Amino acid sequence: MSVEDILQEIREEVRAILPASIRVTDIDFEGAQLVIYTKDPDKFADNSDLVRQLAKKIQKRIVVRPDPSVLESIEVAEKKIREILPEEANIANMYFEPDIGEVTIEVEKPGVAIGKHGSLLNDIKRETGWTPKVIRTPPMPSKTVQEIRGYIRVNAEERKEFLRRLGRRLHRGVSDGEKWVRMTSLGGYREVGRSCTLLSTQDSKVLIDCGVDVSSSGSGSPYIHLPEVLPLESIDGVVVTHAHLDHSGLIPLLYKYGYDGPVYCTYPTRDVMVLMQMDYLKVSAENAKKPPYLSEHIREEIKHSIPLNYGDTTDIAPDIRLTMHRAGHILGSAICHFHVGDGLYNIAFSGDIKYEQTLLFSPAATHFPRLEALVLESTYGGSKDIQPSRKKAIEKMRDVVQATLQRGGRVIIPVFAIGRSQEVMIVLEQLMRDGEIPKVPVYLDGMIWEATAIHTVYPEYLNNKLRQMIFQEGENPLMSEIFERVDSYDKREEILDSPDPAIVLATSGMMNGGPVLEYLKKWGDDELSSLIFVGYQAEGTLGNKIQKGWREVTVSNQTIELKLNVETCEGFSGHSDRNELMNYVKNVTPKPKRIIVNHGEESKCLDFASSIYKKYKIKTIALKNLETVRFR
Amino acid sequence: MSVEDILQEIREEVRAILPASIRVTDIDFEGAQLVIYTKDPDKFADNSDLVRQLAKKIQKRIVVRPDPSVLESIEVAEKKIREILPEEANIANMYFEPDIGEVTIEVEKPGVAIGKHGSLLNDIKRETGWTPKVIRTPPMPSKTVQEIRGYIRVNAEERKEFLRRLGRRLHRGVSDGEKWVRMTSLGGYREVGRSCTLLSTQDSKVLIDCGVDVSSSGSGSPYIHLPEVLPLESIDGVVVTHAHLDHSGLIPLLYKYGYDGPVYCTYPTRDVMVLMQMDYLKVSAENAKKPPYLSEHIREEIKHSIPLNYGDTTDIAPDIRLTMHRAGHILGSAICHFHVGDGLYNIAFSGDIKYEQTLLFSPAATHFPRLEALVLESTYGGSKDIQPSRKKAIEKMRDVVQATLQRGGRVIIPVFAIGRSQEVMIVLEQLMRDGEIPKVPVYLDGMIWEATAIHTVYPEYLNNKLRQMIFQEGENPLMSEIFERVDSYDKREEILDSPDPAIVLATSGMMNGGPVLEYLKKWGDDELSSLIFVGYQAEGTLGNKIQKGWREVTVSNQTIELKLNVETCEGFSGHSDRNELMNYVKNVTPKPKRIIVNHGEESKCLDFASSIYKKYKIKTIALKNLETVRFR
Repeated sequence: MSVEDILQEIREEVRAILPASIRVTDIDFEGAQLVIYTKDPDKFADNSDLVRQLAKKIQKRIVVRPDPSVLESIEVAEKKIREILPEEANIANMYFEPDIGEVTIEVEKPGVAIGKHGSLLNDIKRETGWTPKVIRTPPMPSKTVQEIRGYIRVNAEERKEFLRRLGRRLHRGVSDGEKWVRMTSLGGYREVGRSCTLLSTQDSKVLIDCGVDVSSSGSGSPYIHLPEVLPLESIDGVVVTHAHLDHSGLIPLLYKYGYDGPVYCTYPTRDVMVLMQMDYLKVSAENAKKPPYLSEHIREEIKHSIPLNYGDTTDIAPDIRLTMHRAGHILGSAICHFHVGDGLYNIAFSGDIKYEQTLLFSPAATHFPRLEALVLESTYGGSKDIQPSRKKAIEKMRDVVQATLQRGGRVIIPVFAIGRSQEVMIVLEQLMRDGEIPKVPVYLDGMIWEATAIHTVYPEYLNNKLRQMIFQEGENPLMSEIFERVDSYDKREEILDSPDPAIVLATSGMMNGGPVLEYLKKWGDDELSSLIFVGYQAEGTLGNKIQKGWREVTVSNQTIELKLNVETCEGFSGHSDRNELMNYVKNVTPKPKRIIVNHGEESKCLDFASSIYKKYKIKTIALKNLETVRFR
Repeated sequence: MSVEDILQEIREEVRAILPASIRVTDIDFEGAQLVIYTKDPDKFADNSDLVRQLAKKIQKRIVVRPDPSVLESIEVAEKKIREILPEEANIANMYFEPDIGEVTIEVEKPGVAIGKHGSLLNDIKRETGWTPKVIRTPPMPSKTVQEIRGYIRVNAEERKEFLRRLGRRLHRGVSDGEKWVRMTSLGGYREVGRSCTLLSTQDSKVLIDCGVDVSSSGSGSPYIHLPEVLPLESIDGVVVTHAHLDHSGLIPLLYKYGYDGPVYCTYPTRDVMVLMQMDYLKVSAENAKKPPYLSEHIREEIKHSIPLNYGDTTDIAPDIRLTMHRAGHILGSAICHFHVGDGLYNIAFSGDIKYEQTLLFSPAATHFPRLEALVLESTYGGSKDIQPSRKKAIEKMRDVVQATLQRGGRVIIPVFAIGRSQEVMIVLEQLMRDGEIPKVPVYLDGMIWEATAIHTVYPEYLNNKLRQMIFQEGENPLMSEIFERVDSYDKREEILDSPDPAIVLATSGMMNGGPVLEYLKKWGDDELSSLIFVGYQAEGTLGNKIQKGWREVTVSNQTIELKLNVETCEGFSGHSDRNELMNYVKNVTPKPKRIIVNHGEESKCLDFASSIYKKYKIKTIALKNLETVRFR
């Protein structure tokens, strides 16, 4: 049966179930959903059981949308909404999405805008036809998020067309005959960087991550040109575990090469990866390196993105269902769980995980409905990769900062924009709030501010404690007044020339570029100041050299004699250390039949794999790149 | 540099080296060779160092051929050759190949035709321009061989065009950058049947075997539709280890699906596999099963075949060089050794091997110039798969045959056409010659006669003892007068109705079809006769049932009560038993770094793999179908 025949059959079934009084104008697939357009959205709302009944009968996720003809014009609707909502709700923005009949209303006080039991929302719906969605005005506006959302709105028609195409593809059915499940390692196996895996069945192909190895002297690309990957049109979907470039950096390249399917990721991952990719292009250009793709390819990625929240389950191929679970690594990072076939096989890709409560996130999820295989990172999988506790790390940070500020010095902390920056920000805010270190300005230079802004857009992705502070107590430590954005050359010069005590968080994290070098050049010979490393410094980077004890370094043809105090605060990592990884394996349920270790130096992958086997008697494989393992 | 540029450069180099007096009319790639056409072939012959010098300089295999203009017409040449050769040489046939300027002369007495120090050959060359090749008239003419050779001659032009195309492809050069070597299991892993493996590098793709599982209820095809295999045009070459259908059965299917590259195999493998494939089509038609391909696809395979002898080395891709070594399993069976890159990696595919001197063949080769990985069959790899010695098997055969004939019974031996048939023929001939059993006719029914004829065409592929008997003593036991061909219905009826003692070798080997059933139907209730199994009887076959003790069976709707004596003579297998396989691993040099076991039931593959590892500490993998292993 063709997809069109299937759809026709479904349409007839829907019409048979619905009362004749409900006027249906269109029924179609949009992605994995079946969307019903109606001139009587109220009647659906009045009969809440109807959608459930339909979903049960048709075995699809059902979405009901008002037919465009019952919507007031945007101008009139906007006016009416402003009349309906009390002044004190304080509307900041309204975004209309005509294709789905939804209006997003950004307000300062969502409670006021919603009204008792949603009464105001009902008023809006009745008077305008639009379905209102109320969100809190992001306290720290993110340009990235605004632009992405705006871009999607502007391209709503094209996106709907894409979703309908995708819907047809997802419902193409599965072949008869033998079923199998396998994965092919395309990058990031026995190495870190360029993570990429192909998950394939007799009917489907899914790519998990498509990262770039930024430290590579070559293209740093995974093996996406293998015959089993091509043509890219044959890929059903790309799934992204998280936004770091070693997992997401080359997704736009797929669009450049002709891919035009969906990208599945969490909402924050979508936004952060776009930020990272744009910056990647910028840095490439600055370093006179030919960028592998253009910003138009990032825009294609945005247009084709299908964002999910943790716990959402969606069909991404006729025989593959995806669910995202929290990974604890960075904002939006996910363990991606694939349910293949109808109970045929279940496999989870950890991406990068942190199996410990951090200042920002809850630990990685360990419970899955079913699980036969686990692909697990092993960045710190070596037997000696034990990190100090967060508590010890904070104490050390406190002592170094305190001593430095006390003697009148300044503190430079090189950080990556995403993850560790926000972790360190929370530490500093806490220490200042508790009076453990003096209150001085903390300057955020580089992409950190924007990255932090995205964190404030998605408070529901932060850990319980932080969420509670934000929602219940109205205090977001990331937005403390101690943080100051360095958003211009002049501002930076002003800080550099000022004799006042200060803490600077600046990119890049390994000092191989970025504004952090300006601070080093200026303050490097000041013996009162301190440079604090909070993250891993890779071999060959300037950070690594300084950490190893070099006291004379060359930065942009300028030789600097370093006199400042160099310290390292371990324990802020977004990665699980060896003990946490082993605990993760112990606690994951159900116990997987096999574990494929990846994302670690070769020796660590081998060590970790054999340790898991010895301790838990789970079959492990330290796969190499370019290999294929069959699960079923 | 393009292939045409490379060729142009080579042409200039050749012309620079050759004396001006040698008139060259064309220089081109044909397959892996560089062919020089000249109007002065004599001058090349006079200066034997010239070709060596060219080969050294150009690093290619050089072939010199007379320009067609210096060849006498076929009519005149044939007349002159008949004049030159003495009557007693006894010319049976002459085959002219104008494209290569060669004439093959079949004679009864090659020594006479060659003349002292090749004097007569020189005369022919001088007087006709043609290069003579003298071969002994096959004592038992094989229709298959004649037809294949004839077909290739008729299609000489098309074949030359194919070889030039192939030559260009082989010389396309290798890419810069990272090199890798991997193999993908497409069939025959943890199972027997449908053997097929993809060997691939960053530049090349080679298929090793493409068999069919004839016992399968489905298509019995390996996974040749995987994305990493397609498009078939991307495959550089297909290499066949031996002619059994589980290794060669679906090669014509590749041509049906658009493949138009070369098939590499030994000369006898080419001929035997064509015989087997033709029969496969015939049997499919008889069983009202749709054949997967047509005889025209077998003809394509013949046109694209590049036959080799043991020890020949040839480039089959820009970075892969193939050498065939004897495997001892059946006529022409080969261990295929691949040298990848320039010393990058060496891997041998055993195909099916017999590591013991049999009555027909020398044992499998164990020495390779270099060897990092070995893909090894494990048909009898289970720890209990120990077979009696050939000597014991022969004794049992003698006793059973003797007793049966003595009491006036007849002997039925179900056999496959290739391999075991000829082994049993030699046993019976020997026993009769030595007077250990009475001299009675041995009837060969089914394809056995034709298969045996192909054996007589290639005496150099038989073991030393047999070769010596044939060449030195002029006695070929396969051609003994005791053997009689059953080539018609009437002949079979005559045998069936005769009361005389007789031995019948008839196909099929597992009694699931073929003429053997006629003998069973007629003689099954004769308690004086014997049925002797000499090969493995797979579950579900009639042979298996009878072997297990069934005494009432149904054959083509006819119920037969079996009264004859049922015996099994183990020990005639063409496969190594467990001990031989372990010995093979012990003796293979150099010692490979890893062994991939295949071609065995799952439990045997696993048992064999772990036994090898335990005993020899060589890393082993019992790969599943659909997996990929990376070597480099």
